[in-house]
Formats: sequence, structure tokens, C-alpha cells
Amino acid sequence: MKIILFFNPFKIDLERIKKTIYPVFKKYNIQILKILSAGSGLKEDIAESADYYVVLGGDGTVLRIAEMAAINQKPIIGINLGNLGFLNAFSQDQIEKAARDIINNKLRFSDRLAINCSISGKKYTALNDIVIQKSQPLGTIDLEVKIENHTVYSFLGDGVIVSSPTGSTGYSLSAGGPIIHPSLEVIELIPLAPHALNIRPIIVPTKKNININIKTIASGFAYVTGDGDIIHRLESGMALTVNGAEKKIKLAEQCDDDYFTLLNSKLAFGRRFE
Amino acid sequence: MKIILFFNPFKIDLERIKKTIYPVFKKYNIQILKILSAGSGLKEDIAESADYYVVLGGDGTVLRIAEMAAINQKPIIGINLGNLGFLNAFSQDQIEKAARDIINNKLRFSDRLAINCSISGKKYTALNDIVIQKSQPLGTIDLEVKIENHTVYSFLGDGVIVSSPTGSTGYSLSAGGPIIHPSLEVIELIPLAPHALNIRPIIVPTKKNININIKTIASGFAYVTGDGDIIHRLESGMALTVNGAEKKIKLAEQCDDDYFTLLNSKLAFGRRFE
Amino acid sequence: MKIILFFNPFKIDLERIKKTIYPVFKKYNIQILKILSAGSGLKEDIAESADYYVVLGGDGTVLRIAEMAAINQKPIIGINLGNLGFLNAFSQDQIEKAARDIINNKLRFSDRLAINCSISGKKYTALNDIVIQKSQPLGTIDLEVKIENHTVYSFLGDGVIVSSPTGSTGYSLSAGGPIIHPSLEVIELIPLAPHALNIRPIIVPTKKNININIKTIASGFAYVTGDGDIIHRLESGMALTVNGAEKKIKLAEQCDDDYFTLLNSKLAFGRRFE
Amino acid sequence: MKIILFFNPFKIDLERIKKTIYPVFKKYNIQILKILSAGSGLKEDIAESADYYVVLGGDGTVLRIAEMAAINQKPIIGINLGNLGFLNAFSQDQIEKAARDIINNKLRFSDRLAINCSISGKKYTALNDIVIQKSQPLGTIDLEVKIENHTVYSFLGDGVIVSSPTGSTGYSLSAGGPIIHPSLEVIELIPLAPHALNIRPIIVPTKKNININIKTIASGFAYVTGDGDIIHRLESGMALTVNGAEKKIKLAEQCDDDYFTLLNSKLAFGRRFE
Repeated sequence: MKIILFFNPFKIDLERIKKTIYPVFKKYNIQILKILSAGSGLKEDIAESADYYVVLGGDGTVLRIAEMAAINQKPIIGINLGNLGFLNAFSQDQIEKAARDIINNKLRFSDRLAINCSISGKKYTALNDIVIQKSQPLGTIDLEVKIENHTVYSFLGDGVIVSSPTGSTGYSLSAGGPIIHPSLEVIELIPLAPHALNIRPIIVPTKKNININIKTIASGFAYVTGDGDIIHRLESGMALTVNGAEKKIKLAEQCDDDYFTLLNSKLAFGRRFE
Repeated sequence: MKIILFFNPFKIDLERIKKTIYPVFKKYNIQILKILSAGSGLKEDIAESADYYVVLGGDGTVLRIAEMAAINQKPIIGINLGNLGFLNAFSQDQIEKAARDIINNKLRFSDRLAINCSISGKKYTALNDIVIQKSQPLGTIDLEVKIENHTVYSFLGDGVIVSSPTGSTGYSLSAGGPIIHPSLEVIELIPLAPHALNIRPIIVPTKKNININIKTIASGFAYVTGDGDIIHRLESGMALTVNGAEKKIKLAEQCDDDYFTLLNSKLAFGRRFE
Repeated sequence: MKIILFFNPFKIDLERIKKTIYPVFKKYNIQILKILSAGSGLKEDIAESADYYVVLGGDGTVLRIAEMAAINQKPIIGINLGNLGFLNAFSQDQIEKAARDIINNKLRFSDRLAINCSISGKKYTALNDIVIQKSQPLGTIDLEVKIENHTVYSFLGDGVIVSSPTGSTGYSLSAGGPIIHPSLEVIELIPLAPHALNIRPIIVPTKKNININIKTIASGFAYVTGDGDIIHRLESGMALTVNGAEKKIKLAEQCDDDYFTLLNSKLAFGRRFE
Repeated sequence: MKIILFFNPFKIDLERIKKTIYPVFKKYNIQILKILSAGSGLKEDIAESADYYVVLGGDGTVLRIAEMAAINQKPIIGINLGNLGFLNAFSQDQIEKAARDIINNKLRFSDRLAINCSISGKKYTALNDIVIQKSQPLGTIDLEVKIENHTVYSFLGDGVIVSSPTGSTGYSLSAGGPIIHPSLEVIELIPLAPHALNIRPIIVPTKKNININIKTIASGFAYVTGDGDIIHRLESGMALTVNGAEKKIKLAEQCDDDYFTLLNSKLAFGRRFE
């Protein structure tokens, strides 16, 4: 079994990994092809020869690996170094359990919908969301959303979120979107501070092309981001195409039935106070 | 081609149908097996021998035929006698077009998810929604929602809506739910006036069993309704099971791509006022 | 010092009050003019001769005394027999403290806006809210809200809540309204499940007349309630007038600055989960 | 009668004003002390010697004059050069009516609550809102809101809006806040994309100090703006104080009773689509 170990350098360093994590994986005969900081470049042959991408960090660190995992079709196994996240199968005191589950093929993987975004010839794949958003505190964006050439809406506001079910507990939730079970294959569109009363979150099929036209950026800048990374700076007149990726991202899970337990634990969703 | 003609007696009567609609269908050699008020009983052999159920009325009339259509797997063709609805393919001045499209096999049908509800040995199939709701203006329901034996939430409030994508523009929308494209196969759960801050609409898979336990009804009555019809009166301690029906309801559509145009036209969704 | 003691018979009985509460008040020379179940009738001369109305129960019990307290302009001192409520100054283990604070004039009272409702010659005063709501699970109300003869909105839905700031943590909150500091003198209007996208909660002055016209009740019944009590059954064509009451309801408080602490404690409002 | 004429240079120029507007005011013996672009500096003695500030532009232009009007206690008379706004008494074809109403003292003025903001020794007065908001598309702000030293909430999110009733139809509305009648004296706090389920808009008294502590800015920049102008760049550890201004801003209105008509006309609020 061969893995690549990605880590969040703000949460752990190479020395500590070599002392505390490396020996555990070695004990279980798991071969670590490479240990590198999430976001660093990686030679393609190594990226392709691993069986799994093991990620040490939080949800953000998993998101930084997501696109590479989508491209190379490698399953992600997240080990959370802080509080248990939505995207991590193991907590930091379960490293031995992680190694054991890997070597014994005991892991279950869930297929997560990823979202593709194309703009000016550039492509990006996100696990959580593609966000079109003004940057400066001043001004608004005037944008239009079309699906297969039919206008869904156009409005003046801060932008729009295109979220996967996995992303529905992230920025989408903050912006008023519903929670979507991560096993589903749908895309959610959530307006960001629209200056209109008649726009609501909508859930649409993944196969149709969502076209977002940036009609006007009143002042300042606007950007499109993928999982929180800047993909492209936006200018008036630009257009993006977004849709569901054909290839799923495989994410290790301890127990998919526990999704609502996770919601309760992380967000106090549905928790009763009395 | 054989059809059964269902009508809303508050919008049209038998005499007018015979004068204005019957001759049109006859002209196109469409055989009308039966003309009856929506909601009336129908012999099973007639119900099964029709090719289509043609419904004269509004969305409400289509909903009253939905369960029978689901059971007998007959496509519904709605002709709206008032304003264009969400569930009608034709408006009242398109009766000739409807007949022509039927005989020329030019109709397109969309498969709509229906929702099953079981309570106390009784079963019901709804096209829009199953609603658990207190009836009296006094008191609240204390209910718990579980999915495959995992608690989603429990709360004191007015009740809960279990909606199909088709129902997402109905009561679900009034209660704050997102709009879901009707081609999708998902179920939406929307709390009704929960006395809690941490409950949001959630979108879940159709295959899993949703169990709703009525813990306490503080005072007065509560009911479970299917598409607006009372299925059962609820009492403290009762339990319901809801899930997606295996058999879809076939609904005639003029153009499924126009869903967002329909939203704009019916609800002013995304319409721009300036 | 003279008080009347009102109690919730579902939470405490006369015998227990005589054993556990009566002696405490007696010890502090507080004269109990009358002990009676909240909601029972009371001779006017007794109602007027008391200095305070002491209420044993929860928020609901205080609400049942609110109208009488408004009419007779008597301050309410709530002692909660269950969990601490929004309207109670003392918890059940603070009875001695309550008696001591009463006799030593150490209580602080906050003036709470009450809401008047007139319908068909009947008047009602509520501390929390006046609610117009359909009763049956079927059908909708078509109603129109006007302020000083200018239309605010009209819609098809389940009804409308007219809430005081005190009521903003009650049914109003469940229906999506904001939280309003109870010291403020404003009225909040919250639509109940409007089948429209363009209606939001609004906050209006207390002096203007709010007229609510019941245009149509589609089927079944509808009622107007005050603090959860039925005031009147509604029929198509009826009209109500609602406005802020001139006389405030005086409510004992331990510490008005702690309103946000109370919100956190009762509703987990703003509580951080990490 | 003496006025200063402020204009939005993107909508009208000096030459056109001299040709089309100057003669009208002259005809009615209204003395124009100065014509200047909104936002330009103005000598204090001139600013003080005018009776009114007449503003040619949209809502944004009125907002740019608001602070100066608050300081010098001069009433604002807005003439809208585009579509009728919320803050303008006259439309562009009513210039003669405006002049006539000014000279005949026929104008009615409404007192609008303004909001003071203090940060790092700097003070600012806004008519609509004070907004704390992250600028970069990346990262979040961790902020805490206190009122008179009691914590209201703290959260990770995009920021917070402190809005006057006048501002309740602006950015506050986009962020999910209720609509507040502009005659009221209350302050509204609306969280911007909080990553929490248990935070709602709250309405608080104007006299109490609202303290906002910027605990951490995860990455990028954050700013505090007043009516859309940058007041100060924010850094982790900074603190702001916000409260209602004692001096009201006087705004000319044609008819205050028409507020809901204005809402219907500008935002389609409550408009019925059928």
C-alpha cells in the first residue's frame, strides 16, 4: 500500500510527522512515497503511483488536495489535527486506527460530487464550492445566471455561490442555503446578498451547464474562487461555465450514516436546548 | 387513444365540457372513456384501460388525480382552466393543441418523484408533499425526525413538511424551503415554525426511510395530509414512515427547459424590478 | 404590601402552595389577598386592591395574567416553576428572595408594550402577540394588511403574526422574525407561510392602526388568538384593528441588561459551538 | 431662502445644471449659495449659512451628503435624476415643484436616525449603515458584538451590518434583515454570512453603546464603511463603538404615509402576482 502524506504546515511540521506519524505507518507496512505541505507541487508520476492521499490537517487542508485527487482519481483519507471536521475520517488520536484500516482495506469511501468551473480557458475543480464575489467593501456585482441558455435570474448583489452537497455545510450554509446530504448528485445555487426579495436558493441537476455572466462590477474588484482559492479575477463582461464533474472525489468516511450526528456535533444542528 | 377526463366541478361543469371540449377530442379521434369530477370513485378496469388521464382544472385538480395516476401508472395531461399552473401542460385556450399533441404523440412527459407515507397500516402517495401539522391555533407538536434510525432533529413547533421537488414551489416554498428542479430525485424536509434557531431545510436521498415520531401534541388536534388531503388524524405517540415512491408520476410538459421561465411567470422568481 | 397569587394548576396545587409558598410570604409580612388558578375569574375590587400580581408557573401562565394586569395596571412578578422563562423574574428556588425583594422594594420593573386587538366590538390586550391563523390543515387565508389605510401587502397563506418586542422570542421567532429588545416600543408584523417571495417581516410604529382584512378563508376555519387564547373565530369579510396599547404592562425583572444572556441561555442564541 | 446644490457628476454636469435647474430656482427667488459635486470639500461658513442642502442624484448622492447635513443640522431635499429612490422627495421632472414647495414652506421633513461610529479616535456619522466586512474573497472575520459590556454574540463570518431604519431597505435587506419604518428610533444588527445557525437579526435601542471587537482577521483585509464609504481599515484586535446619533437627519418627504407604496414601487414588496 502506497500513500502520499500531505500536511498543513500551520498545524504540524515535518519533524513532528517523522517522529510521531511516520513510524506508525511504517509499522503497518504502509509505504509513504512523499511527505509534503498541502499546496506544494508534486511530480505527476508520484501523484499517480500512490493508492491514497492521506491529509493531515482540517477541512481546509482536504480542500487544497481535492482538485489533485479529482484529477488523479485518488481517494482522500483525512486525519484531523484539530476538532473533527466534515471532511476528515479520523481525529488526531486515531492515527494508528487509520493505518490499520488502510492496510486491512476496512475503509469505506463515499463518492462526492465535484464542481467544474471554466473561465477564460482556465479550468478548476472544487469539492465544496465555486464562489463569485466582490472583493472591495464598496460596490456590487450585476450578474446573470443562465442554465442551458434559459435565464434563472439576474441581480445586483455581492455575488453567487455554486455549491456541491459537500459544500452545503460551508459558505453556502452561512449564506442561507439548505443542508444537502453529501451522497446526492445535485448542485445548489445561493445568491450572496441580492438586492432583491424574490431570489431563493435553488437546487439544479449536475449535467446542465450553468452560465454566469458578469454584467457589471460597479467599483473595486471581484473574484471567482474555488474552495477558497482564487481562480481568476473578474471583470465586467466576463462569463463562466460551471457544472458537475463527471469524476467523483472519493473521501474516506468512518460512517456515512452518522452524517446527522456530525451535523449535531459540529454545528449543533437540531440539538435541543432545554 | 383512450383517455379519462377529470374535471374540477368548481371551475367547469359536465354540460360545458360536452359542448366545448368533448367535440374537440372527438374530432381528433380520441376516445373519452369517462368524464368525472376529480375525487369521484372510478371502476378499476376503466382506470386501467385509459392511455392518459386528462385533467381540467388547476394544480389542485392535478394533485387530486396524482395518487390514482401513480397507482395505475398513467400519465397525467393537465389543462389549466385558470392561470397557467406548475402542473399543467396546457392553458384553457390550447384544448385543440392538447388533442392534436395527444393524437400525434408529440407530448413530452417528465418523471416526477412521488412520496409514500405509511401510518397505522394506511398508505398514501403524494406528488407534492406529506405535511404533519397541528390543526388548532393553540398548542404545538413535539416531533422527532429520524432517517434510518439516526435522529435528524426533534423540536416543538407547528409540524414538518416532507416535499418532493415538484412540491418545492408549493407549501414548502411558503415555509422557507429552496426551489428544487422537478427532474431531481431528492426529498426535502422543511420544519414548520420550529421554536429553535438551529434547524434548517435539509435535502435527503429518496431511498432511505424517514421516520417521524409524534412525541406530544400539546393541545387540540394534528393531522398528516398528502397533497392537501387529510390522510390521518395524529395522536401523541404515533409514528409515520415516509420515503420516495419507486414508481414515478408521468406529467405532460410543453417544455421542461422552461422551468425557470415558469418560475418567473408564476412567482416573479428572479424577475427584475427597476 | 398586598399581592394576589396566581398559579398554573398543571404545575402546582393549592395544598402545596399553602405548605411551601404561603409561609414564606407570611414571614415577610406580605399579605396574600387571594390564591387562584390562572384564568379563573376574580372580583374587580380584589383585582384592584393588590399591589402586585405574583404568578407561579411558566411564560404561559404570565401571559394568561397579562391582560388583567394591563387593565388594572398592576405589575407582574413571575416565579418560574420549571426552567427559567423569558417572562419570569425568579426561579422556583428563589421564592424567599422574591418575598424579600418585594418587601424591600428592590424589584425593578420594565414597561412592556402590550398590543390591542379589536374585532366585532370585542377587545383584547396581549403581551406577546395577536395571531391570525387558519386552523384546519386544509386551505389558506387570503388576507390584506393596511396601515392607516395604505396597503402593506395582501397574500394567500397561513396567516399573520402581530408581535410586541416581548413576543419576538415566541411564535414570531419560529416564523422567521428578528429578535427585538423588550424595552422598545415597536410592533412587528410577520407573515405565516405566505405563498409569495416578496414579503418580509416589517417593524412599524405602535401608534398607527394596523387593519387586517380577512378577504377569503378557502376552507375550514381560521381564528384570531391573543397570547395563545382564542379571541374570535374568523370568517371571510371580517376585519380587525390592531395597535399598541397606551398602558404598558409592568414586568418584574432581575436584570434587564442580561437580556442577551437570557437569549443565550434559553435559545442558545449566539452561543458558540467549537 | 438659501440653498447649496450638490450633484452627482456621473449623472449631471455643471453646464446642464446652469441651463436647466439654476433658472428654475432663480425664478422662485431661491438663492443658490454654491453648486458643487457631492463629496467635494466645502467651507464651513457656507455650509452653515444655507437653509437647505438640495441634492441632485440618487440615493447614493444623498448618502454622501448625509454626514455633513447631520453635523450642520441642515435638512436634505433630494431630487432624483434616475428612478425614484428611497431618499429623494422629488423626481427629475418635479424640479419646478421642488422650488415652489421650498419657497412656500410646503415641504414636510422626517427626522431620520443617524448612526455614529468611533474607531481609533476617528468619528463618522452614517444615515444608512455602518458595515464591518472582510474585503478579500478569502478568509473570515472572527468578531464579537457587545452591548453595554454584555456579549450579544461572537462568530466567524463575513462581518456585521449596523443599520438605521432608513438603511433597512439597503444592504441590511440584502443580508436578510427586516424592513423597519424610517420614523422609528431603533438600531438593527445583521450578521453577514455567519458560520453559525443560531444568530438572527436583532433590533436594539439607540442609546446603548454597541461594541464590536475584531478578534481575528483570518487572511486578507477587512474594512469598516459608513454608507458605503471606507472609514477605516480593520486589523485583528481593533474595536469600534457604534450608537444612535443624538441629532437626527432631516429629510424632505413628499408623503411619509406612502412608505409602503414606495416599498411596493421600488422593491415589489408585497406586490401580488397572479
